[in-house]
Order: sequence, then structure tokens, then C-alpha cells
Amino acid sequence: MTVSRGRRPGSPDTRAAILDAARTLFASGGFSGTSVRAVAAKAGVDPALVHHYFGTKDDLFVAALALPVDPREVLASVAAEGPDGAAERLLRVFLSVWDDPELQLPLLGLARTLLDPSGKQLLRDGFLKVVIGPIGVALGIDEPERRMPVVASQVLGLILMRYLLEVEPVASMPADEVVGIYAPTIQRYLTGDLS
Amino acid sequence: MTVSRGRRPGSPDTRAAILDAARTLFASGGFSGTSVRAVAAKAGVDPALVHHYFGTKDDLFVAALALPVDPREVLASVAAEGPDGAAERLLRVFLSVWDDPELQLPLLGLARTLLDPSGKQLLRDGFLKVVIGPIGVALGIDEPERRMPVVASQVLGLILMRYLLEVEPVASMPADEVVGIYAPTIQRYLTGDLS
Repeated sequence: MTVSRGRRPGSPDTRAAILDAARTLFASGGFSGTSVRAVAAKAGVDPALVHHYFGTKDDLFVAALALPVDPREVLASVAAEGPDGAAERLLRVFLSVWDDPELQLPLLGLARTLLDPSGKQLLRDGFLKVVIGPIGVALGIDEPERRMPVVASQVLGLILMRYLLEVEPVASMPADEVVGIYAPTIQRYLTGDLS
Repeated sequence: MTVSRGRRPGSPDTRAAILDAARTLFASGGFSGTSVRAVAAKAGVDPALVHHYFGTKDDLFVAALALPVDPREVLASVAAEGPDGAAERLLRVFLSVWDDPELQLPLLGLARTLLDPSGKQLLRDGFLKVVIGPIGVALGIDEPERRMPVVASQVLGLILMRYLLEVEPVASMPADEVVGIYAPTIQRYLTGDLS
């Protein structure tokens, strides 16, 4: 048995061409406005090859983000335990990734892209739909389509203050303090009374 | 008695030159790194003239932001009534300004500048210090230097979702719904237990 070290199939050039095309099209057309067929055409390959290498359009989108971790895998364990205490679990997973110096740099690049006016569609139609929205569904909370954007409003503000703008004391707070401050907010947004 | 229509003294050219110099220096050096003396030198005028036209360095900074309203005046009434219910008053004032179509455009321009990596120092050393920080002090809350950046993390996230990225349902919620969702959060950040 050969050890593949997790390498995926396909010529590196073809994979790179597909990812390049996907990034360009997702950035200009958003998630909804971009089809796998269009990505394939731009990369000069058959759509079946895109599916073969990358799976679904959701998977292709996450691959195009070039995140250091697949947020859907990380968040699956959070969602599996149900809504009670989900905010604290969500925050602890979030902080373990964002506070890791090696993971932080690519995440900052992505955050800057998503928060840039040109990244608006990518965040709105892509990231929120593919990554954030499904958390609410997996948790089985009421009105996930109303509550998850509210959750996102606090998480994005935290990312801004702690990592992008580095405003003290938020930037240097220990993880436990961040959890103490933000978990009750996010738990209420997930499951509490928003009147 | 002549009606001045609120016009301020000074040659328009001199005032414009001072504001130009102030914007350039605040943007590159941040609030703390910019002196009235340096602004005067760059504008080719005497520092006394800067003080004469614009008052203190704080006043000059707010003038350089070219906001449609002076946030310090708007927020003074919120602060005067004390910490009880301050979050709801703060949010209602905030929404009355941001939801006004005529005021929203210049505010969006400012928000984009402050959230851009190049605006980092301006937001951190300027806006938070001159505009946000003093609200906490005026309200007489405990640990304003810890609590106000936390408040800012939720308000910035709300600005992002409602106005900059226009993510539904946050973008189109009536003001009362925004207050119902966010006032309890901000009130806790101002006066509640953050353990």
C-alpha cells in the first residue's frame, strides 16, 4: 500500500487552474451567481472533472477560500452536541483557530477580503450561506435564517476588534475572558428571546 | 445684528488647508501621533490659528472626519441621563442618524475608511479615544476603558451587517427590532456582569 499523505488526485496544474477560476468567478459573481459549469469553462476543463476533484459547489467554494481548516468540519462537532451551551463551544473552537499564530495569517487575509466592499457578495451569498447558515440548521435552533446573521454581527465585530484593528483590551484578552463576555450574548442570539 | 447662519470665522482657503493637512496627518500618524503644531506646519499657518478656527485637537479631529453630525453632541444627551437604559437610548440615537438616507452616505464613507487596514490607527487612537471612550466616562460606568471597546465590537458588527454588507434580515429590520435584539447586549456590556 502506498502512502498518499492525503494528496488529492489530479494534475496540480489542473487543480490550480480550477481553483483560480473559482476564486475569480466567486469574487465577481458571488456564490449564487457562479456555476460549476462556468468555473469549468473558465478553467478549460469538463464540469465532471471539477466535481471529481472538488465535490459539490459548496466544497469548491470552501476550497477556493483556501482556509487553513475546513470550517464545516470544525463546526460539525459544535453542532452535534445541540443548542445548550453551543455559544461557548462555538467561541472556544473559534478562538482555538483564530488565536493560533500559524492559522491567523491566512484567516486575516480572508477576513479582509470578505469585509472589503468588493467581497460583499462573497460574504453574503457565499460564506454566510455555506458556512454560517448551516450551523444554525445543524443546531436545530428556531429561525436560523434570522438568528445566524445576528450571531455573525457579533462574531465579525469581535474579529474586527481583536484581530484586524487590534483594539485593547479586546485584542489581548485571554480566551476565557472573551468567552465570559461574548458567550452569553451569542447564546441569547442562538436560543434566547430576541422579542 | 447680522445673521451669520452658523458660518465659522476664517478664510475658506485657510480652513480647507488646515483640514486637508489634518486629514493627511491623522490618517498616516493616527490621532496620538499627530500634533496641532504639525498640522499647522503642514498647512503653512500658525498653530494659534488652528486653535482659533477649530478649538482643541479633539475638535480638529472631529472636524477632519467631516461627519454629518458631531457625534459628541448627539451622544451627550444619551450620557446625561445616566447608565440605566443607556443602551436603548444609544441605539435609538445611532439608528436615527444611520437610517437617515442623507446622513448614511458620508457615514458609510467614514466607516469604510476606519475599517480599512490603513485606517486602523485612526479608529483605534482617534475615533475610539475621542468619540467612543468619552461616552463611557460621561455615563459614569465602571471600567469604561474595558467596556467601551466591547460595546464598539457589537456596534461595529451591526454597522457591517446592516449598512456595509447589507445582510438580511439585519439590513431591513425595523429600528424597534434592532433595539429589541441589541439593546440587552449593549446594556450588559455597559453595566452588566462580564465576569
